[in-house]
Amino acid sequence: MPEPSQPPALRPVPPVSPPDTPLYQQIAQALAQLIHGGTLKAGQRLPSVRETSVAHGVSISTALQAYRQLEEQGLVQARPKAGYFVRRPQRIAQPGLSAPPQRSFLVERQTRSEGFAMLHQPGDRASFGGFAPEQSTLFDEERLRVAIGRASRVHRHSLTEYNKADAGRPALRQAVARRALHLGCALDAAHIVITASCTQAVSLCLRAVTQPGDVVALESPTFFGYLDLIESLGLRVLEIPTHPATGLSLPALELALDTQPVKAVLAAPTLSNPLGSVMPMNAKQKLVKLLAQRRVPLIEDVVFNDLLAGDERRKAAKSFDTDGNVMVCGSFAKTLTPGIRLGWVEAGRWRDSVASHKRLQGAATPVVLEEALADLLNQGSYEAHLRRLTTYMNQRRNEARRLIAHHFPPGTKVSNPPSGDTLWLELAPDLSAMELFRRCATEGITFGPGEFFTATDRYRHCLRLNFSGPWTTLEMQALARIGEIARQMLQENPEKKRA
Amino acid sequence: MPEPSQPPALRPVPPVSPPDTPLYQQIAQALAQLIHGGTLKAGQRLPSVRETSVAHGVSISTALQAYRQLEEQGLVQARPKAGYFVRRPQRIAQPGLSAPPQRSFLVERQTRSEGFAMLHQPGDRASFGGFAPEQSTLFDEERLRVAIGRASRVHRHSLTEYNKADAGRPALRQAVARRALHLGCALDAAHIVITASCTQAVSLCLRAVTQPGDVVALESPTFFGYLDLIESLGLRVLEIPTHPATGLSLPALELALDTQPVKAVLAAPTLSNPLGSVMPMNAKQKLVKLLAQRRVPLIEDVVFNDLLAGDERRKAAKSFDTDGNVMVCGSFAKTLTPGIRLGWVEAGRWRDSVASHKRLQGAATPVVLEEALADLLNQGSYEAHLRRLTTYMNQRRNEARRLIAHHFPPGTKVSNPPSGDTLWLELAPDLSAMELFRRCATEGITFGPGEFFTATDRYRHCLRLNFSGPWTTLEMQALARIGEIARQMLQENPEKKRA
Repeated sequence: MPEPSQPPALRPVPPVSPPDTPLYQQIAQALAQLIHGGTLKAGQRLPSVRETSVAHGVSISTALQAYRQLEEQGLVQARPKAGYFVRRPQRIAQPGLSAPPQRSFLVERQTRSEGFAMLHQPGDRASFGGFAPEQSTLFDEERLRVAIGRASRVHRHSLTEYNKADAGRPALRQAVARRALHLGCALDAAHIVITASCTQAVSLCLRAVTQPGDVVALESPTFFGYLDLIESLGLRVLEIPTHPATGLSLPALELALDTQPVKAVLAAPTLSNPLGSVMPMNAKQKLVKLLAQRRVPLIEDVVFNDLLAGDERRKAAKSFDTDGNVMVCGSFAKTLTPGIRLGWVEAGRWRDSVASHKRLQGAATPVVLEEALADLLNQGSYEAHLRRLTTYMNQRRNEARRLIAHHFPPGTKVSNPPSGDTLWLELAPDLSAMELFRRCATEGITFGPGEFFTATDRYRHCLRLNFSGPWTTLEMQALARIGEIARQMLQENPEKKRA
Repeated sequence: MPEPSQPPALRPVPPVSPPDTPLYQQIAQALAQLIHGGTLKAGQRLPSVRETSVAHGVSISTALQAYRQLEEQGLVQARPKAGYFVRRPQRIAQPGLSAPPQRSFLVERQTRSEGFAMLHQPGDRASFGGFAPEQSTLFDEERLRVAIGRASRVHRHSLTEYNKADAGRPALRQAVARRALHLGCALDAAHIVITASCTQAVSLCLRAVTQPGDVVALESPTFFGYLDLIESLGLRVLEIPTHPATGLSLPALELALDTQPVKAVLAAPTLSNPLGSVMPMNAKQKLVKLLAQRRVPLIEDVVFNDLLAGDERRKAAKSFDTDGNVMVCGSFAKTLTPGIRLGWVEAGRWRDSVASHKRLQGAATPVVLEEALADLLNQGSYEAHLRRLTTYMNQRRNEARRLIAHHFPPGTKVSNPPSGDTLWLELAPDLSAMELFRRCATEGITFGPGEFFTATDRYRHCLRLNFSGPWTTLEMQALARIGEIARQMLQENPEKKRA
């Protein structure tokens, strides 16, 4: 038997758990942290039960209880006569290509995002819902305040006038056009329309190219906000098989175009939500060509592309557009601040229609914030900020994947996107993510149940975890707890079947 | 013959006309100003031709030419051997009840407001189009700048967060509810939804209660922005006879409800646009009752109500709503500043649907501006400001009516609204307001041709004049010039008929 590696010296860890947490749990959590943090590596021996009881000043049986919990969590394994060892994390698989039904659906389960937001109550212990991005990673308050103050001084006349630039102030449209160069797009600032948000941009595009009852093809799973939007516009969705790594399946899309009256394709070819998939460059090019041939417009969401800062893959499908068939929509809510939520769209052949819809429906955007945003985007540090943000997100996502590998039941599959703050999990097929959600919610832990991300009956055993919020021991424990509850549910299931 | 009253002492008037204006015209304009300003009153004798030639240092024939022009303009009349006298202005009639066709129309002449705005080019000499309200009458830049600065300091955290209050910040919703008390409405702040503009509020209401193809009843004539909005939503309009003084004809509306599938009524019972009509209080009450009985929602636009500050008539129809059948929409663009264009809506029974549409379509409103607007509305001086603004508008409108009475062809009818900055003119039936518009536009003078205010074939001899812009000699001359061109067109007409 090989000599086990020496465990590192362990000092008592300051308690991070709520005061009423049992002692053995506190100890288990402290040890779990050392494992997740990499202090205790896979294969290493843990301190003996006796050592731990001394170090923490607890009884042997309490220390033993702690080790048993770690064992249940799948973090450690006992080897007879040798002690407890850190388990090698299960090799965690990625989900495969999704397989939605091959027909279109009227979106009927209204207000996914509403239901979701309602369940994400203030006072939650930990939210992986994605509604409250952590502020420290984005631009700081002071910087934003200064930009707004400057804009309201420099453009003081605008405070007493209608925004004459219906499509948005030239300064912001130019700043957006400059930013789009990083996505490989040479856009004419005069063709860009500023909107209240990226969702509004997509809404205007859908309005320009569809009538109620029309079919829109989407990635599957997709962003719940898009399903809600499509529902509110009375459209039908056709969900297209999508791979967590490579995105939209082009053969599947082609089949759909051959057999169904698809009026538009709405997709995020770069860092789709929730999968985080990125279509390879040649697939993006093929997608644009395929849709141009069919004269079916592509509404491309590039809201996450900048999270691949310094990476060639952030290039937009729009960069291959030669005849205005791609309507590209973005915003800076994910990279700069959600506090200035303004979005933008370059709608190709439909740019006049989109501009006109914006105006006719009174979707005015405020000059002061347009000018402040232009100012912020033009600051030289923005690209460096993106790289820092990307690095930070990658770190956090990797930590989260490691925790999931440790704590979630065997067989759990997890996406492995190249950037972003979102992971997509596939649990055992008969495990209800909604039931898991309900149980977690009673403990103040929330996330996105898979069925929110489809208009079909798929993904009931899936969930989206978003890590844009705070990321402290509390959240790490909460993430582990979701895994534990999932394990419990799996253990209950056989009983249910016998009953 | 009665002794004519003595003319006042006349000094040469400083030239206000462009430098290349012929001398006789300059003199005529100077005298016209004295007439419009009330220095020379109806029935008074003008200085003799000789006196004028001396006062202005011009030849007798130049002075005579000036008098002839004034005569042509209908401002003065020559009495043999007695000289020139100021004419009593023609008693100007108000237009009667409008008579639109009794069937519904698909709105098809897209982009009225776009066409209108395109014709209102920068560099226009004088615009009565209403796109550029004069700033001095509203809140000043500094006051707005300070409010925005304060909001971005006090609510600095909001700069880095999504606006969690989807329906708008509580402070603004409370301020709106307080303001609504002046309209006789006790609204619950929690039921108010903040929007990007009043037009967006109306758009959300229409979306909540109609499907494409549905019929919406409107005042006739109506605001062109509403026709454009309705067109973009694929709705049909049914225009209801409307009286310039008393607004919507209730018998006509009742007949329409009996015979047509009206899904909603969109109206401004207080200071409708363009007529400026105000429904009497009991008519407002009857309107609400009638629509409640039929379960047809009323979308009430109260954007101008505050221009009847200190006047009981500003009470909204909503004040009679007992069962949530009235959706009331407003903004402060007309009374505070168009620079913060935010609007609001209390949508009665449909409030959840309206709030949800706002959110699902990504029509986010910015916290900083919401807080700044709340601050401005809560300032004690706002009600006093409204009274000043109303007084100022009344003065200006009366001056404009007097000029129109002098300069427009006999038979011209003009609305006489109790407040606001808009007049509606009805010319001779065979006079094309669009042709008048084209001719005026070549001289840099613009206004709203009547056909922009209907989806039917009516009002081709009508126009809307808006006096919210600057109001100097230049504009007074431009207004007179519209009348002159109309006269010329009338003189041409018989020739055309002979040809």
